[in-house]
Amino acid sequence: MIYTSINVQREPDFLTLTLNRPQCRNAMSLKMVEELSHAIESVASDLSCRAIVLQGSGGHFCAGGDLKDFTAAQGQGDGALALRDTNRAFGRLITQLEHAPQFTLGLLEGSVLGGGFGLACVCDYLIATQDCQFGLPETSLGLIPAQIAPFVVKRIGLTNTRPIALLGQKLNSEQAATINLVNEVQDSPAQLTLRRDQILATLGRCAPRANATTKALLHRTLTEPQEKLLDWAAEAFAESLTGDETKEGLSAFRDKRAPQWRQ
Amino acid sequence: MIYTSINVQREPDFLTLTLNRPQCRNAMSLKMVEELSHAIESVASDLSCRAIVLQGSGGHFCAGGDLKDFTAAQGQGDGALALRDTNRAFGRLITQLEHAPQFTLGLLEGSVLGGGFGLACVCDYLIATQDCQFGLPETSLGLIPAQIAPFVVKRIGLTNTRPIALLGQKLNSEQAATINLVNEVQDSPAQLTLRRDQILATLGRCAPRANATTKALLHRTLTEPQEKLLDWAAEAFAESLTGDETKEGLSAFRDKRAPQWRQ
Amino acid sequence: MIYTSINVQREPDFLTLTLNRPQCRNAMSLKMVEELSHAIESVASDLSCRAIVLQGSGGHFCAGGDLKDFTAAQGQGDGALALRDTNRAFGRLITQLEHAPQFTLGLLEGSVLGGGFGLACVCDYLIATQDCQFGLPETSLGLIPAQIAPFVVKRIGLTNTRPIALLGQKLNSEQAATINLVNEVQDSPAQLTLRRDQILATLGRCAPRANATTKALLHRTLTEPQEKLLDWAAEAFAESLTGDETKEGLSAFRDKRAPQWRQ
Repeated sequence: MIYTSINVQREPDFLTLTLNRPQCRNAMSLKMVEELSHAIESVASDLSCRAIVLQGSGGHFCAGGDLKDFTAAQGQGDGALALRDTNRAFGRLITQLEHAPQFTLGLLEGSVLGGGFGLACVCDYLIATQDCQFGLPETSLGLIPAQIAPFVVKRIGLTNTRPIALLGQKLNSEQAATINLVNEVQDSPAQLTLRRDQILATLGRCAPRANATTKALLHRTLTEPQEKLLDWAAEAFAESLTGDETKEGLSAFRDKRAPQWRQ
Repeated sequence: MIYTSINVQREPDFLTLTLNRPQCRNAMSLKMVEELSHAIESVASDLSCRAIVLQGSGGHFCAGGDLKDFTAAQGQGDGALALRDTNRAFGRLITQLEHAPQFTLGLLEGSVLGGGFGLACVCDYLIATQDCQFGLPETSLGLIPAQIAPFVVKRIGLTNTRPIALLGQKLNSEQAATINLVNEVQDSPAQLTLRRDQILATLGRCAPRANATTKALLHRTLTEPQEKLLDWAAEAFAESLTGDETKEGLSAFRDKRAPQWRQ
Repeated sequence: MIYTSINVQREPDFLTLTLNRPQCRNAMSLKMVEELSHAIESVASDLSCRAIVLQGSGGHFCAGGDLKDFTAAQGQGDGALALRDTNRAFGRLITQLEHAPQFTLGLLEGSVLGGGFGLACVCDYLIATQDCQFGLPETSLGLIPAQIAPFVVKRIGLTNTRPIALLGQKLNSEQAATINLVNEVQDSPAQLTLRRDQILATLGRCAPRANATTKALLHRTLTEPQEKLLDWAAEAFAESLTGDETKEGLSAFRDKRAPQWRQ
């Protein structure tokens, strides 16, 4: 695929996805949704890719959905169906990112609004510069944050989501850190990069397969009955204990050296 | 209905419900439950009523259930059944308020105990004066917070609820703000009113129908499978995008004026 | 049962369980799991035991699972099955402690890692000394926190759990208090004991049976449909109101004396 709405950069250990429509604060177009989905899918079974780094170009993360696509969809044969499908495609992208086996790291600047807010909410770790603005402006336009709200509630809880979704409340970076929406606030884009490198180095000490299974387990705790999940997890534990990663992990631990994971 | 336990005041844009039994810190009687339920029902399909404001008279919000009703219920033919039904009616009221399509705003002073605590927990936004006391005194009387605990856990989580429910721990307003039980603490009743007006003004910028749908969506995220919910939400999104509210919302946005929602 | 991995001390009002393998920071062996389970079971229907206090000897709570047991299990006839069962047994212990009818109080010092972290997470109240270290080192060894992660997510939420489980992030006591993982941080082991006594005294004011029912109710809010749960709770409320505890609770309240619960 030739990417035109995003930049895709594959480093040896991770994949960087940069939303790249700076002229409109990286508004999420249907094309951007398709490109992001394609790029995430391209590493779906590639454990040598330890992380997906998500960021925006031009000083903003993402200002939300691009309303032009919806206007276009309305003009089609069955407008309502096309609108529905366009909206649903965005929710599928967020779900896909949520369940990526990689560690997902969002580097946030400027606008983190609407769909951009939803996309950020499923990242495993979020670092924001001082100047971010978080919000769900949908209902002030007569719209609903349809594919977004479930992921916001999952990240910050119902109480915090209510004024954001129902009053159009905006949060700055400091407020976002207070309610644990972002994990860290940093002073500059340069420090985002510095912290990214530190976090990726830390990630390297954890085993790729064990991490992917653990991430899936964390999500399953939210939807599956506890007893059944613990039964499954015990099988997964036995498998991990007898696998190559544990062999290397315990050996490195005994030798007091950094583990070398097979990828 | 002639209200005797509460005051009901319908303003053009919102409804104010004042618990009005100051002689017993607005203890929740069966009569009060019926009156609140009736008043909330009266605006259930009236989108011109944008908010329900809930407050108490005489410097307290609500000191909990009125035990006199339970004594009376015990004296009836089948005492245990009557007790059960009296208790259950209160839980139905809280559930009704939780799902009101309006934005619900609680203005809290003094005692916010037992059933009063439960009622507060389902409001979309809570503002407290400095002097509030939050608690669940039930088990110190040998009772259980039967219709209340689920709403407390939903608002502040299991960890915060445990010492309140199992040790009789009381929280003051500052502590309540720290755990995000209340959204704001203000210095005086006059400032509660001031903030109420500011919040209602902010609410006016959000579309009534979009807000009601969004509020329902927030609650459904807690109980429904994510994929199915996102399917439904995409239909609701398409409907909202082609509706009158979005037409007005986008037009106002383009013209840089405040939207005028049809109600 | 003769306990060799833990100390079991029955006081008139509570049970103290001390993990007692200080030579290995109280690493959780299969034997320790069996002994803890036996001790918790011994008071399962004994409401005169109001609390279970859980602590470690030698300045640590628990450094996690003892890998020696897993090595032994691997050597058995069907190694994978034995591993699975050994792992699952630990999850059953945590679940058993989670649902103990008593109030559970964890006194934490030093290492609170892996399985020790999981065990702590289900306590109703946690007090830590200044020197604690919380973490899930599993994936850095190639393992997964199989029987632990669900309880960590339940206590501190998905967002807080992610970097702990997927980056090997460690928390100190202050950080643990900030995210509400522990309820209190105290300066010294002596102050842990002091606070323990204060909390047990407070607990004594709450009725034993009402507390056990309330604790069960809190947990059921996380897994059961709200309406059905409220129906059940109304029955339980009616039962509690007509029971001995409420008789004593209301009588003590009227007489302004401390209640004397029958046990």
